[in-house]
Amino acid sequence: MTRDIAINHATVREKADMLAFIDLCAARNLRAVSIWGDEIDKVGEAAAQAALQQAGMTVYGYNRIGPFIATELDKAPAQLEQAARFGADHVLVFTGGLVDGEHDLKAARRRHEDIIGGLLDQARQIGVKLALEPLHPMLVGDRTTLASLSHANAICDALGDGIGIVIDVHHVWWDERLEEEVARAGKAGRILGFHVNDWLVPTRHLLRDRGMMGDGIIDLPYIDGLVRATGFNGPVEVEIFSDDWAARDPAFVLDTVVQRCTQIFPDLVTP
Amino acid sequence: MTRDIAINHATVREKADMLAFIDLCAARNLRAVSIWGDEIDKVGEAAAQAALQQAGMTVYGYNRIGPFIATELDKAPAQLEQAARFGADHVLVFTGGLVDGEHDLKAARRRHEDIIGGLLDQARQIGVKLALEPLHPMLVGDRTTLASLSHANAICDALGDGIGIVIDVHHVWWDERLEEEVARAGKAGRILGFHVNDWLVPTRHLLRDRGMMGDGIIDLPYIDGLVRATGFNGPVEVEIFSDDWAARDPAFVLDTVVQRCTQIFPDLVTP
Repeated sequence: MTRDIAINHATVREKADMLAFIDLCAARNLRAVSIWGDEIDKVGEAAAQAALQQAGMTVYGYNRIGPFIATELDKAPAQLEQAARFGADHVLVFTGGLVDGEHDLKAARRRHEDIIGGLLDQARQIGVKLALEPLHPMLVGDRTTLASLSHANAICDALGDGIGIVIDVHHVWWDERLEEEVARAGKAGRILGFHVNDWLVPTRHLLRDRGMMGDGIIDLPYIDGLVRATGFNGPVEVEIFSDDWAARDPAFVLDTVVQRCTQIFPDLVTP
Repeated sequence: MTRDIAINHATVREKADMLAFIDLCAARNLRAVSIWGDEIDKVGEAAAQAALQQAGMTVYGYNRIGPFIATELDKAPAQLEQAARFGADHVLVFTGGLVDGEHDLKAARRRHEDIIGGLLDQARQIGVKLALEPLHPMLVGDRTTLASLSHANAICDALGDGIGIVIDVHHVWWDERLEEEVARAGKAGRILGFHVNDWLVPTRHLLRDRGMMGDGIIDLPYIDGLVRATGFNGPVEVEIFSDDWAARDPAFVLDTVVQRCTQIFPDLVTP
């Protein structure tokens, strides 16, 4: 069994538009990418589709629905339709945080859970899967209300089919319940993605200082082992939000990504 | 029933040494302070003791044992003895994070749990209580391995008497299990302290950008209510690690602390 490397466009989006990104991935024999709706808009959907087709490349994750404010939620049906047109494996759900002046996190969580239920109804009709990605607890408040695998698992338990979880090492590596919650997600067949990057010491910014795999302190082979032990064999998705890496030549970034992935993760399709 | 405001010296330590800090608290009729061993060293233990005695002030928390490296752990017996001489209610335990090159968080946690057990033996002999303070998950790696109330409760469950938990809102407010884990700690009679401050949006630094109570998004009355519902009636301890507040006049900082606490928390001893 082999698996792919899928790179998330966010990793190089500041210097490479979607068409350039697809070319860069194709030149490295990568077979899947994760994409962003706003980046599709920048190059036009027809051009984006043509570039993918020409490269023989599939879409893994589609980013994203949210944050959960009315003006953004209004776009959800069109975003789900677009994700379906691109054949995306799953659509990332981004709750966003508390609204201005709001302090009741518990109420916000209940509201967001309700909204996720409504989005799932839409997604089922359109035939695409929703992916919950618990974010790091340091992002609770302004960017999310969903900050643990246990919370994501509980939401999925309540909602049934058509919704699953993306596990991003940056967000969950610290959790003392990591093993049991990964196993729980795996047993339910709901692991939809596995995002890799690294935790730098020091981390200088809450949002934009993730590390390249191998430059930080996360035990990536260990977490990869937990995920694979569930039977999950999807791509290793590389998603690095980093001002440092965003400023570098995208070709160099992707070469580094491929090299590091090959060193760290077994059974990859050799690029 | 009334309760005190106890200010942690760290809040103003950059501009006020321990003697000045005690004077500032006494001038506001505060009756308890939380102190630091390294700040005692700067002014001398005799002077520190005399200042406390003259002010009629008691010591609440003593900071701290750790991080868990040999050179620091060697100091633990002397630190516990010093805390006892100051009549401290509890001694904060600071695990520190992974050592250089270490990636195995699970093994580090096991090692730290063993060290805590050894420290507890020492603390029992000397007759002081140890306090585990779960830190925010963003501090896992370089500053702690203990990042949730559930982990702290599990360690206390395993170790028995003489060890408890300090609940700091900044570290735990995001946790979807907050209610149940506060109740669990309370039921076991192991809540030793309640630290307040606030979570700013945006938070610009992982360590030194906490907010003054009321300036952020934490629902302080709600968490205070959870803690008090367990029967805990210790002081409200204010601990603000913040470059902004550290740069201000300590008298102004303490006036603001007292004013905000009076607005937010019921039943305080009126300063």
